[in-house]
Amino acid sequence: MPRCTVARRVHFNAAHRLHNPAESETWNRDTFGPCNNPNSHGHNYEMDIEVEGEIDPRTGFVVDLAELERLFQEEIHAVLDHRNLNLDVPWFLHHNPTAENIALFCWERLAARIPAGRLRRIRLWETPRNYVEYDGN
Amino acid sequence: MPRCTVARRVHFNAAHRLHNPAESETWNRDTFGPCNNPNSHGHNYEMDIEVEGEIDPRTGFVVDLAELERLFQEEIHAVLDHRNLNLDVPWFLHHNPTAENIALFCWERLAARIPAGRLRRIRLWETPRNYVEYDGN
Amino acid sequence: MPRCTVARRVHFNAAHRLHNPAESETWNRDTFGPCNNPNSHGHNYEMDIEVEGEIDPRTGFVVDLAELERLFQEEIHAVLDHRNLNLDVPWFLHHNPTAENIALFCWERLAARIPAGRLRRIRLWETPRNYVEYDGN
Amino acid sequence: MPRCTVARRVHFNAAHRLHNPAESETWNRDTFGPCNNPNSHGHNYEMDIEVEGEIDPRTGFVVDLAELERLFQEEIHAVLDHRNLNLDVPWFLHHNPTAENIALFCWERLAARIPAGRLRRIRLWETPRNYVEYDGN
Amino acid sequence: MPRCTVARRVHFNAAHRLHNPAESETWNRDTFGPCNNPNSHGHNYEMDIEVEGEIDPRTGFVVDLAELERLFQEEIHAVLDHRNLNLDVPWFLHHNPTAENIALFCWERLAARIPAGRLRRIRLWETPRNYVEYDGN
Amino acid sequence: MPRCTVARRVHFNAAHRLHNPAESETWNRDTFGPCNNPNSHGHNYEMDIEVEGEIDPRTGFVVDLAELERLFQEEIHAVLDHRNLNLDVPWFLHHNPTAENIALFCWERLAARIPAGRLRRIRLWETPRNYVEYDGN
Repeated sequence: MPRCTVARRVHFNAAHRLHNPAESETWNRDTFGPCNNPNSHGHNYEMDIEVEGEIDPRTGFVVDLAELERLFQEEIHAVLDHRNLNLDVPWFLHHNPTAENIALFCWERLAARIPAGRLRRIRLWETPRNYVEYDGN
Repeated sequence: MPRCTVARRVHFNAAHRLHNPAESETWNRDTFGPCNNPNSHGHNYEMDIEVEGEIDPRTGFVVDLAELERLFQEEIHAVLDHRNLNLDVPWFLHHNPTAENIALFCWERLAARIPAGRLRRIRLWETPRNYVEYDGN
Repeated sequence: MPRCTVARRVHFNAAHRLHNPAESETWNRDTFGPCNNPNSHGHNYEMDIEVEGEIDPRTGFVVDLAELERLFQEEIHAVLDHRNLNLDVPWFLHHNPTAENIALFCWERLAARIPAGRLRRIRLWETPRNYVEYDGN
Repeated sequence: MPRCTVARRVHFNAAHRLHNPAESETWNRDTFGPCNNPNSHGHNYEMDIEVEGEIDPRTGFVVDLAELERLFQEEIHAVLDHRNLNLDVPWFLHHNPTAENIALFCWERLAARIPAGRLRRIRLWETPRNYVEYDGN
Repeated sequence: MPRCTVARRVHFNAAHRLHNPAESETWNRDTFGPCNNPNSHGHNYEMDIEVEGEIDPRTGFVVDLAELERLFQEEIHAVLDHRNLNLDVPWFLHHNPTAENIALFCWERLAARIPAGRLRRIRLWETPRNYVEYDGN
Repeated sequence: MPRCTVARRVHFNAAHRLHNPAESETWNRDTFGPCNNPNSHGHNYEMDIEVEGEIDPRTGFVVDLAELERLFQEEIHAVLDHRNLNLDVPWFLHHNPTAENIALFCWERLAARIPAGRLRRIRLWETPRNYVEYDGN
């Protein structure tokens, strides 16, 4: 059977602060600039969740997008949307909430629910001018 | 010579119904939900057609985009645009017109007209929130 | 109190056929071209629903967008999304489902649920290349 | 001389919390839902700043966009970008930072620097799915 | 009959140089900065052409978009697309090709072909970050 | 450490003429059509600069986007923005300024400043309807 990649573009928004508590205040300000604002700033995040696999001859689907949407709602939207990542999401106590690390976090939660080898890539837009891609490697 | 990928983003719109005639009405309604509406619904489709190859030193082109546009017009627009895929396009008598299968159909028609190894990937947007990619494998 | 316009951008998709049953087949084909395809074609519709009014000093809102979304779901999404407008929506038995008339239909249904003078304008995108605006006049 | 409207689309991002301190916690949670999260959430804001006037025959400009950009940087970007609106911007101590009120704030600061009658409208996108417009009335 | 606005979004690209030959070179460089480059620079222009009127009960159209597209092709695309505005378009010998003046030029050519009172507004994007609007006044 | 791709979307605009001086005028007109206009035409260029690498545990970054932006400003914006590529940029004396060759030019200048193996891909949009990708091979 032919193999395809299928993607769903999803949305959440959140506040965050870039900060490494193991470093000095000066280092943090120098490294993260305005992103180090102690009171936080925030973003609209757009994310493409890509899943690959053979096209099921019965449905014509690689994956049911309604199911992929449900996964996103349960694993990501429910824990990140309208949150302050640093204060409301325990994982970010130990990971600076950069776009890179948010992508990692989303990958891990989705990969735990999707059969091995099927989650292909996550593309996370932090602003209309920058994105990160992560594929589990 | 350096190799590049060149892409053209094209547009068509069509009606379709997701339905597997080998299955029961209940299975179809459960599997495809509102997409199974017997009277059809429809979409604007946006598609990126990616072609790769060496840059021709005489033109500076990998491919002449005007030619790629012509190919799209003849092979895809002429048969899918402003059509009901299930009723107007014979290939979809035997293939459920999911985004996955529409991408396959477009690939096959384009690949038959483009020298081997040059068509690289098709990305088909069914809505602004979902797309599929197919690369011939 | 200052007055503002607040808008929600919503989405639905549908099939339609442009056709005037009071005219000949030739006239219909000449007038509507491929949009007259008897088997229908379709579109993704994006719509901006604009509501105006004073900013409520208690909430800082002109209108609660969650309520506007609910109105859209009940009055428009529930009756147009994943439908064939000509066959599934009685109102279009007597109105050709052009973008102009779809905008009128949406206006009437929303205006019946929104206090007088507050619905300001509807902008309906039929493709990324054309839209209509209607303000009730 | 002919009159034109000229617009610059600008960007900033910020954290905020929707909250009315004069009301109960229950009322705030019921009214603002997840937007009432005490730790804040955030957005990318896109804003169109529209200025109108006669076309200057010497320059062909209604306004020099470089100057409009400078105004934006000084009056808005410098005070809102990468900020928590509730905690970092005194004006929002007395105004709930809804999109409506952020538009008002931006209008007032810009109008103070632009000759009377020239600032025409502000359109503020809080997410790709909702915007507000304010024209000073 | 209800009145609607109908719009078509069109595209052309061109080179231009901002320059007032009645002024000194220094004034031109100070006023127009890099836009004064004697060798020209260029843009992709996107334009919304808005036409208003009553909905024709026979067609359901305010205007046939295929006709509006034809008008655009004849009056604007044929004379501006892939041109150097300063060197290839006589009108710009006496008008600096700012976005404001390009909008005026397009308005005049379209208004000469559209029944009085029907052309409503032109919105011209010079970059994704700035646009002008002109309505004939 | 996990590896990620990080991208910055940047903008510049320029005039160009597609022309091969080693060929006849007829060949050039036949091959490049309106893009061969001797007076030039122009475009807004959008470019995604993708960099890959391990996530630095100290910062949570693969690369500091402010640095990547600075690189773009120095190496690309400073030499291409608001320029006529054929007349103002010596490299294009010997390379036809097609999107393919502009991507090559940008790659070479960025690759000279970025540690080996980190620049992953450049995606250059010449219009909203076509782009090229180059990855150094």
